[in-house]
Amino acid sequence: MRIVLDTMGSDAHPQPEIEAAVMALKEFGESPILVGPGERLRGLLGNRGERVEIVDAPEVFEMSEHISGSALRSAKNSMGVGMDLLKEGKADAYVSAGNTGGAMAIALSRLGRLSGVKRPALSVLFPVNGGKCVVLDIGANAECKPEYLLQFALMGAVYAEHILGVKNPRVGLISNGEEAGKGNELVKSTYPLLEASGLNFVGNIEGKELFGGQVDVAVTDGFTGNVLMKGAEAIAKLITDRIREELMASVRTKIGGLLAKPAFRELAKDLDPREVGAAPLLGVNGLVFVAHGRSDAKALVSAIRLARQSVEVGLLDYLRTAIEQGLSQLGAEAAE
Amino acid sequence: MRIVLDTMGSDAHPQPEIEAAVMALKEFGESPILVGPGERLRGLLGNRGERVEIVDAPEVFEMSEHISGSALRSAKNSMGVGMDLLKEGKADAYVSAGNTGGAMAIALSRLGRLSGVKRPALSVLFPVNGGKCVVLDIGANAECKPEYLLQFALMGAVYAEHILGVKNPRVGLISNGEEAGKGNELVKSTYPLLEASGLNFVGNIEGKELFGGQVDVAVTDGFTGNVLMKGAEAIAKLITDRIREELMASVRTKIGGLLAKPAFRELAKDLDPREVGAAPLLGVNGLVFVAHGRSDAKALVSAIRLARQSVEVGLLDYLRTAIEQGLSQLGAEAAE
Repeated sequence: MRIVLDTMGSDAHPQPEIEAAVMALKEFGESPILVGPGERLRGLLGNRGERVEIVDAPEVFEMSEHISGSALRSAKNSMGVGMDLLKEGKADAYVSAGNTGGAMAIALSRLGRLSGVKRPALSVLFPVNGGKCVVLDIGANAECKPEYLLQFALMGAVYAEHILGVKNPRVGLISNGEEAGKGNELVKSTYPLLEASGLNFVGNIEGKELFGGQVDVAVTDGFTGNVLMKGAEAIAKLITDRIREELMASVRTKIGGLLAKPAFRELAKDLDPREVGAAPLLGVNGLVFVAHGRSDAKALVSAIRLARQSVEVGLLDYLRTAIEQGLSQLGAEAAE
Repeated sequence: MRIVLDTMGSDAHPQPEIEAAVMALKEFGESPILVGPGERLRGLLGNRGERVEIVDAPEVFEMSEHISGSALRSAKNSMGVGMDLLKEGKADAYVSAGNTGGAMAIALSRLGRLSGVKRPALSVLFPVNGGKCVVLDIGANAECKPEYLLQFALMGAVYAEHILGVKNPRVGLISNGEEAGKGNELVKSTYPLLEASGLNFVGNIEGKELFGGQVDVAVTDGFTGNVLMKGAEAIAKLITDRIREELMASVRTKIGGLLAKPAFRELAKDLDPREVGAAPLLGVNGLVFVAHGRSDAKALVSAIRLARQSVEVGLLDYLRTAIEQGLSQLGAEAAE
């Protein structure tokens, strides 16, 4: 199995990527293909690099708001070169801790969409009560249509079933109220599509159902999903910072905090995005995973593990089938 | 000063409301006006009720999705009767722990909007690093236009200045990215209005700026605000539940948890919506505060305290002026 690792992605690149490659070689018995400035990477790897394949990408990726289509198609940076390996069948999956919007733009221009997909989505695994929930879209599409959300639900359910191992995953639609009929126009129009989708649709959900672990897949537009995800990250940080601060307030609480440390460690692990690793770009024509910019080597290895698992189960074929069936079902209904 | 307290609002009504009236009488030297089933309330108050004024509202409020306009205008339930007291000048502010949508609908039909207000907003004080942030709209308007968000910003800034005591409050626009130009269509169209508003507009914000305490007012549409608020509540609950659970995992962490208890108590207090009390319906023609349905007597007294403070500072006049000035400014720009 061949996984491409973009070495120029993380905030501290390429050091975490190089460490990750060495760790992955040890864990999986094969190294990811490193894409980036070849000579520099070889120098940094030194004698650890004998079994590490490097593909040279001479340019540095510069993300700007107004990057042109032709630049996206021709760029010789690590993202472009890496995704070309995927496109040419020289690799099975791609991992980067780079700019998410950039990865999506390059994936769309180099790989395109899976047949029938209207808009690919960014997803993430939220830590929820009792497990994880696939939340999508978390930022690829600030403006959405009901048909996009239906496809997000289909793709999210496939991901939950084949990557999380959840049979008949429960799908919820994020809204400002649980009752059917609540929501903005997008939610109100999406609800009947999900009801008729054949998915295990449980209806509208709020934060308490989402974080309470009552669904396996939570669907929303990329604006709301992004605001919710970043809000959840920020409040989790606020709370854990505050706990640390409060624990330092007296000798008594300091001692208590030291004794309780194993408890906090367990919790921090569950809330740590590094334990999850990466978010797939669901709907592009290839397995592309984007990890957090703050990823360290451990986080990147998690991402590689996830990418390998996705290749092993044949995630892309399942996604393709779900979209086709979803479309034919919609077609059948439209014809009635 | 006369504050109306709806006795039929909270989940456990009317017991918390009755306790709150007795507590408020003690704290403020005068009781709120209780509105609800007169005889029942008198029976429950017993000899504590001598200094408590009760206004009878014979009907029980039944919220349904398709409540008619005439029903809203004529209903003799505790919300309708209570708001009529406000309208007739017999009371200065109104507090309920009832259904928020219902309160907004009745307020709009009985009190109407402040002159020039396009849409009233529900706001809430989020606990953030170092203090509180006014977030609005958190649910009154699932669909918004840029001009609504501009008015939310104006009203939120007035609230932050005169209720929170923040000079020149910093206003942020909740978006899926901090950079100007990021956002859905609504955010992109609202940005220039806020830039030209004369407010202390700091630009687009994400969760980390919001919960990091970098703004005093955070503006968003009612759908996104509602999802974010309920998400924040739910993740805070998830984390505190998990801490409790992890602390019970071993004798060591149990002892640590007991010693650290004062630290958690302080944190729980800061995150407790009961400490904040109620969200104002900003933009209706009267001071209306809606408390959480789970409110107990202490939470209702907080809400009454907030209502009293709002009357004392003359919040309604400040709101009126801000909207008028905002409008005239907009008018001037349109004429250029």
